[in-house]
Amino acid sequence: MADPRFFQNQGPFSLARLADLSGAAVADGTDAEMAVRDVAPLQQADKGCISFLENPAYLKAFQNSDAGACVVHPRFADRAPAGMALLLADRPYRAYALIAQAFYPEAAAPAGIDPTAAIDPAARLGDGLAVGAHACIGAGAEIGAGTRIGPNAVIGDGVIVGAHCRIGAGATVSHALIGDRVVLYPGVRIGQDGFGFAPDPAGHVKVPQIGRVIIGDGCEIGANTTIDRGSLQDTVIGDGCWIDNLVQIGHNVRLGRGCIIVAQVGISGSTRLGNFVAVGGQAGMAGHLTIGDGAEIGAQSGIIGDVAPGARVVGSPAVPDRLFFRQMAMLRRLAQNRNQKP
Amino acid sequence: MADPRFFQNQGPFSLARLADLSGAAVADGTDAEMAVRDVAPLQQADKGCISFLENPAYLKAFQNSDAGACVVHPRFADRAPAGMALLLADRPYRAYALIAQAFYPEAAAPAGIDPTAAIDPAARLGDGLAVGAHACIGAGAEIGAGTRIGPNAVIGDGVIVGAHCRIGAGATVSHALIGDRVVLYPGVRIGQDGFGFAPDPAGHVKVPQIGRVIIGDGCEIGANTTIDRGSLQDTVIGDGCWIDNLVQIGHNVRLGRGCIIVAQVGISGSTRLGNFVAVGGQAGMAGHLTIGDGAEIGAQSGIIGDVAPGARVVGSPAVPDRLFFRQMAMLRRLAQNRNQKP
Amino acid sequence: MADPRFFQNQGPFSLARLADLSGAAVADGTDAEMAVRDVAPLQQADKGCISFLENPAYLKAFQNSDAGACVVHPRFADRAPAGMALLLADRPYRAYALIAQAFYPEAAAPAGIDPTAAIDPAARLGDGLAVGAHACIGAGAEIGAGTRIGPNAVIGDGVIVGAHCRIGAGATVSHALIGDRVVLYPGVRIGQDGFGFAPDPAGHVKVPQIGRVIIGDGCEIGANTTIDRGSLQDTVIGDGCWIDNLVQIGHNVRLGRGCIIVAQVGISGSTRLGNFVAVGGQAGMAGHLTIGDGAEIGAQSGIIGDVAPGARVVGSPAVPDRLFFRQMAMLRRLAQNRNQKP
Repeated sequence: MADPRFFQNQGPFSLARLADLSGAAVADGTDAEMAVRDVAPLQQADKGCISFLENPAYLKAFQNSDAGACVVHPRFADRAPAGMALLLADRPYRAYALIAQAFYPEAAAPAGIDPTAAIDPAARLGDGLAVGAHACIGAGAEIGAGTRIGPNAVIGDGVIVGAHCRIGAGATVSHALIGDRVVLYPGVRIGQDGFGFAPDPAGHVKVPQIGRVIIGDGCEIGANTTIDRGSLQDTVIGDGCWIDNLVQIGHNVRLGRGCIIVAQVGISGSTRLGNFVAVGGQAGMAGHLTIGDGAEIGAQSGIIGDVAPGARVVGSPAVPDRLFFRQMAMLRRLAQNRNQKP
Repeated sequence: MADPRFFQNQGPFSLARLADLSGAAVADGTDAEMAVRDVAPLQQADKGCISFLENPAYLKAFQNSDAGACVVHPRFADRAPAGMALLLADRPYRAYALIAQAFYPEAAAPAGIDPTAAIDPAARLGDGLAVGAHACIGAGAEIGAGTRIGPNAVIGDGVIVGAHCRIGAGATVSHALIGDRVVLYPGVRIGQDGFGFAPDPAGHVKVPQIGRVIIGDGCEIGANTTIDRGSLQDTVIGDGCWIDNLVQIGHNVRLGRGCIIVAQVGISGSTRLGNFVAVGGQAGMAGHLTIGDGAEIGAQSGIIGDVAPGARVVGSPAVPDRLFFRQMAMLRRLAQNRNQKP
Repeated sequence: MADPRFFQNQGPFSLARLADLSGAAVADGTDAEMAVRDVAPLQQADKGCISFLENPAYLKAFQNSDAGACVVHPRFADRAPAGMALLLADRPYRAYALIAQAFYPEAAAPAGIDPTAAIDPAARLGDGLAVGAHACIGAGAEIGAGTRIGPNAVIGDGVIVGAHCRIGAGATVSHALIGDRVVLYPGVRIGQDGFGFAPDPAGHVKVPQIGRVIIGDGCEIGANTTIDRGSLQDTVIGDGCWIDNLVQIGHNVRLGRGCIIVAQVGISGSTRLGNFVAVGGQAGMAGHLTIGDGAEIGAQSGIIGDVAPGARVVGSPAVPDRLFFRQMAMLRRLAQNRNQKP
């Protein structure tokens, strides 16, 4: 199903093998030796494919699916169409992710350094690197083993990149220490000066930005996202954060572990997020705030004060989510009744 | 008027010729043989220039203009200053666009492949290509005739680009099939993995993104805009869509024909837009929605539900535009009267 | 304190010297010959460091600081901990900026043109340039003395860049005239066609964009920001403007002197800002508006009408800031009392 120009299917796999690698259980009555050829969405899967049901909104598609096999939560097992093989998992989407990784492992670029890459003789390169055409690696930079650097990417002087990272085409990195297994998508900008100056009608006065960007292990940083280096301290992205495209992260910002930042979010300077904070698309945060662990910030929200751990807020300026939707309903009611006296 | 460093004026043209190529009519009493030297705005045009009146807000500028000629709707013809030559058109801005194209056709880069470009021997190249310095074209990629690829652009393995396209400097494209006459502006990112993972406190689990990006004929994609490839299906941009700068389009999104997407819009995964949908700047849409043909979404709107064909909505969350402005007026009135009891 | 991989400390300096270069006064009782080794934040400074107090929110940190010296407004001098040396300044942050510049002057790249740069023979290059690997400079371009062009940056045909500019890695510039001492951060896109077309169901008709981008002296343009060239006039950025990352500036926009534009702002075509306008992050402006000198536009605001000089507005659509916060308080009160009759 995937276009063979771009993706190589490593299947088929037996259901037993897929259950094993994904932590799912083969349902009673399902033939564990059944061969599965590919992954596919419920609506398009055929008898040779495995699909998944995570969102109950797709329950009907599940019931009507021609998929030969499906990963499903045990509570929906009895809703499966007749003849569908089932793998049971408490987190079906997570199990599906591992199955899909087996069918379509990330293509490893063949190791090798393109002869057109501009690599400073004083850079230190690990084993098994892949460096694309016209990539640049500066003096004193260190690149860990197995890392792939895309065409036209630029790694500045002194930057450290860990092992098994993927640096996208056209990305630029300076003044940064990057962990292992980090993915920087194309066009990412890491480590440039933050927006630091003393305003002055006679000419704003630049404040030297002498911090760095520190990125933990296993982070993903989306295309054309920008992360400025710190002013006097560092800008820090904790382990396992996922940051989407076109996000702006200002100087001295700190993210804890596992934060999820959706596209086009902006986080102003010196704001700190705890662990596992989730921020919806296009939300913005003022500077110098503290956002607690596990907080959830709605899309397009404007955060101008601290947010407590676990709180769910939305709106601009943001309020607790239930209050926000009550406000919206109230406003609508008032406007629709506007001919009556308030 | 245009700086000859950057633009070559192909005029003069007779009014008759300009009428002919733009579908406008020479007004009674206008000398069709009059020579027009250049295009200019109403306020700056002189006797040798042609201008246009589209927006009635500029009616006064029209009446005071020194322009030698002007494209105008017939209903405003009698408001022209004495001596101004007139071309009449039902859509004056469209006619002006065609006239300006005659004066300033897009500069064709001379065909030729820069010797510093890194082109895989297994790429297939059409006739009359222009490929800039340090551009990269991967294995199995196909580039159609007459296409121009800017300096430092990167076309990944297997990507297909149609004929007479223009790929901007520093743009990157992977996992994509691109039609004819498509313009990708500088810094565009097409085809990188979408934001797909199963959240997990022990480490979010990546979901392989095995779809593509399909871009129809005649699309324009603005600078630093990002379009992720599909997860299990494709991300599809219909023929003739115009997408502005810094727009984010998530995996599996589908746009119909002729959509207009203004700068900094974000469209979340799997949302589908019909034909000729117009989306104002900085608007955002949640995932898995359906936006009907011809819908108009106001700037900065937040769309969290389906939008009917032809509907006009605004606000975050969005409501019908008339209701939105009523709500804003109501809120203002209440706040201004706040000392009175509600 | 700053990582020597990336920054070279030029200290120590005597307090007298720091007072002299920053315009501050050595306080009575402070030893002007004291040697200062580095700059540091109040919370982390030790006896060899100088810090600053600008924001009164940090008064407690000031009182508890171990900093050997601090720049402070005279009104807070008597709150300093015992033994702290003081420099007195009316604008402490500005004085600190100049002090930090002395410790950490911008690193000058060694002059020289990388042999892999693609420079058209018809480009005119000033003295003392630094041009990085794989940078491109087009025919007829002029680059002023002492300017540094990063790796993989692209300067188009005919573009003029002044003296002592810094063009970031991967930035692209076309159809532009750029002043002296301008900084373009990595990934900036200057001078591409604006979003100009006549809408048409049979295919939107492109309007040639024949203006330029003019950037004044001393401007800073943030990473991945996009500035489109004018359609019939020029897009103009006045002297000394500071523009943050991921900002969109449409065709024909004009900014006066010293404007401050925070990240992810969008300014639609033909809108004009006066001098020293400040725009908060993620704000958006419709086209063809006039924003007066010194206006302050709050973060995430939506501007759909002219703004008077000195006005402070916020909200979408924006209203005077006091009204906005009154509206928000009113709405919250109504929603919290929703069980009572309105």
